[in-house]
Amino acid sequence: MAAERLVVVGGDAAGMSAASQARRLKGPEELSIVAFERGDFTSYSACGIPYWVSGDVEGPDALVARTPEEHRSRSIELHTRTEVTEIDVAGHRVRALDRDSGESRWTGYDKLVIATGARPVRPDLPGIDAPGVHGVQTLDDGRALLDSLDRAPGRRAVVVGAGYIGVEMAEAMLRRGFEVTVLNRGAQPMATLDPDMGRLVHEAMDGLGITTVNGAAVTRIDTGQDGRVTAVATDGGTYPADVVVLGIGVEPETALAREAGLPLGPHGGLLTDLSMRVTGHDDIWAGGDCVEVLDLVAGRTRHIALGTHANKHGQVIGANVGGGYGTFPGVVGTAVSKVCDLEIARTGLREKDAKAVGLRYVTATIESTGRAGYYPGAKPMTVKMLAEYRTGRLLGVQIVGRDGAAKRVDVAAVALTAGMTVEAMTALDLGYAPPFSPVWDPVLVAARKAVSAVRAAGTD
Amino acid sequence: MAAERLVVVGGDAAGMSAASQARRLKGPEELSIVAFERGDFTSYSACGIPYWVSGDVEGPDALVARTPEEHRSRSIELHTRTEVTEIDVAGHRVRALDRDSGESRWTGYDKLVIATGARPVRPDLPGIDAPGVHGVQTLDDGRALLDSLDRAPGRRAVVVGAGYIGVEMAEAMLRRGFEVTVLNRGAQPMATLDPDMGRLVHEAMDGLGITTVNGAAVTRIDTGQDGRVTAVATDGGTYPADVVVLGIGVEPETALAREAGLPLGPHGGLLTDLSMRVTGHDDIWAGGDCVEVLDLVAGRTRHIALGTHANKHGQVIGANVGGGYGTFPGVVGTAVSKVCDLEIARTGLREKDAKAVGLRYVTATIESTGRAGYYPGAKPMTVKMLAEYRTGRLLGVQIVGRDGAAKRVDVAAVALTAGMTVEAMTALDLGYAPPFSPVWDPVLVAARKAVSAVRAAGTD
Repeated sequence: MAAERLVVVGGDAAGMSAASQARRLKGPEELSIVAFERGDFTSYSACGIPYWVSGDVEGPDALVARTPEEHRSRSIELHTRTEVTEIDVAGHRVRALDRDSGESRWTGYDKLVIATGARPVRPDLPGIDAPGVHGVQTLDDGRALLDSLDRAPGRRAVVVGAGYIGVEMAEAMLRRGFEVTVLNRGAQPMATLDPDMGRLVHEAMDGLGITTVNGAAVTRIDTGQDGRVTAVATDGGTYPADVVVLGIGVEPETALAREAGLPLGPHGGLLTDLSMRVTGHDDIWAGGDCVEVLDLVAGRTRHIALGTHANKHGQVIGANVGGGYGTFPGVVGTAVSKVCDLEIARTGLREKDAKAVGLRYVTATIESTGRAGYYPGAKPMTVKMLAEYRTGRLLGVQIVGRDGAAKRVDVAAVALTAGMTVEAMTALDLGYAPPFSPVWDPVLVAARKAVSAVRAAGTD
Repeated sequence: MAAERLVVVGGDAAGMSAASQARRLKGPEELSIVAFERGDFTSYSACGIPYWVSGDVEGPDALVARTPEEHRSRSIELHTRTEVTEIDVAGHRVRALDRDSGESRWTGYDKLVIATGARPVRPDLPGIDAPGVHGVQTLDDGRALLDSLDRAPGRRAVVVGAGYIGVEMAEAMLRRGFEVTVLNRGAQPMATLDPDMGRLVHEAMDGLGITTVNGAAVTRIDTGQDGRVTAVATDGGTYPADVVVLGIGVEPETALAREAGLPLGPHGGLLTDLSMRVTGHDDIWAGGDCVEVLDLVAGRTRHIALGTHANKHGQVIGANVGGGYGTFPGVVGTAVSKVCDLEIARTGLREKDAKAVGLRYVTATIESTGRAGYYPGAKPMTVKMLAEYRTGRLLGVQIVGRDGAAKRVDVAAVALTAGMTVEAMTALDLGYAPPFSPVWDPVLVAARKAVSAVRAAGTD
């Protein structure tokens, strides 16, 4: 019997994790694996790009977990600089374009993995393609931005967007010695937090010398005689810029899937079942930034572009296509980030998320420290907790602070997964010693206050 | 109607948390509160003493969360330097001795809280009471030790015991400029870890210049002409000492309770129900270091002296005696500590704990880092995980490492509380960003390996 053929579209975390896991389970005599990647790199950490730009990390090689050569040495037939341009579902084949030779050819598959990732949102504005305006989605983007910094005529950077990428790039540009202005369309930076918590991020960014302009809608990129960016115009003013970084967010890269008639969700991502198999298609799997995932708290799908999910998807897909078994049950929406020493974390639902899915809730916000108050280096953190009205079930946690603030959100992530009430959380046996926590961990302090809020809200 | 009277025996975390919470719920016209504390201090952090001794913390005032005056200002009739010497259960009264005047008197109670804490194990050895030999259980102990350091004729310190207190005091003495030898009766330091993980602590202590002698049973304290300690003799050798710190552990201080006929468990601690009411006694509660707590993983009681539990007990007791409601469901055995920058954490069962309660298990040990491997400051950590044979239920986690190692154990603590399998843990949505975690958090890496171990162990 001839070997089955697995074709993988996309050579980053989800695709190559799937390929590697499948190869671990089945040798080349049983399964041939062909992977197509349109860029030069495989299995890299896009999340690390801000730290490469800041100078903290030597890039781009350090950000590559596994090179094309390493994949090939594991009997994976990997084609880089080769873009899949069509999926023929009925014919069980994909058409791939060699970007160097310009030649296209069809490759048949028995099983297909779609891992096409996400693409940065790039608003259709005058000047958006001018030299000096950069996205930071791929390693090539990172390299282009670093080259651009060297050529920048001055030291003024404008970052468009104040989500994770925006705030991380603001820090990176600051560390590169730029004067940084962040243009934020929303009411506060970090729209993945409630505005009251986003305000704390805003204040901290002010303290770091980063200028944040809220409610700023970009209308135009101005350019000079040489065509390079000179300023970013908004509905409220114009901001001179020697370099512009776009950190507006990403959307699923699913044009191929759409053209192939595969099912997409409300956020434009591929829809899969728990085994990461594309809904309605027994021999097609999808994972990573191009899919929608089930939000276990909200009970609906979301699009979340995050390497840790992509790696898990890849593992699950690889297990299943390799004859093993694995499922991805969903997410609770955990994310952590930082601006300099300010740590930012969230999991579960924000107030507006809870409202959007019909959940009535109470909130509790507390201030505490990451160590015993008397221990040197103890620094403040703010924890906001949402609990369901009546039942007291935990709905979400947001944390802004320093010194161990961010990863405390993991406790809430596990509690959300387990469906715990905030009352049950008050009894959690969390690690305590003065260098690591006050005698009541900040998460427990928030849970206690949330219990009071649930009680005060009554049961009518 | 006259106010009910609540009597509290013991003025540290559990007792005064109970008093404070009861006072919040009921005013003096409804409930009079009388508390007796045999020492000078109330509501202090004994866990902070090593950091006071090391010089990191200004003591002892910084370690006091609430002073006697603060308690009195909240309408709590607090008597310090007053020791309860007898509990008359039938007569609903306690006898208290004023340690300054030498006078004793009886005080009647409607409700009684016993929070007598723990006392350090002090083996009956020749010379154990010599000047220069110190326990570190109370703030008075801390002050006595600091005075002793000033008077020490040389700079050789011997720490007896290599548990939490032992390793923390080893660090403290090192930071005070002493040459430190730790005498450890067990096979490896940190007997609360499995020996393979304790060995990592041993190696790190070696690296810090702390000499650890394993398998060393102390037989005698040698003293000089002035009566002060000069050396510690063991069955394997004699170690010169200018100061000796005893960190052998503690046991419940329950002599009073025993004499009063109250029920004690196999570890000598008071037994309570879930509301922290002493078993069989409707009007007596107990909490803190003098009680045994239910180990939710092992399904039996343990004695754990830890301020965070004491505070929780106090809250629960205060709620219940104040007419509210609260329960303490039990612990999973979480503890964190450090020696210099080496972090040490554990939760759940060690191998020998699992064996002792008849659980068959598999283990998985992995090495990872606390940040993305390429991120500056990434340092190694080792995670060991125990899972139940067949079911794959998480049984325990031990972590030794640097840079955010310790508090990662909290994820396992919540998972244990929720009864998760290691397979369910592999899908946990933990915070990921390069400064905070590799793309697979070390706990998830351990869970994945534990899943393989469960599978490999079969299901027969």
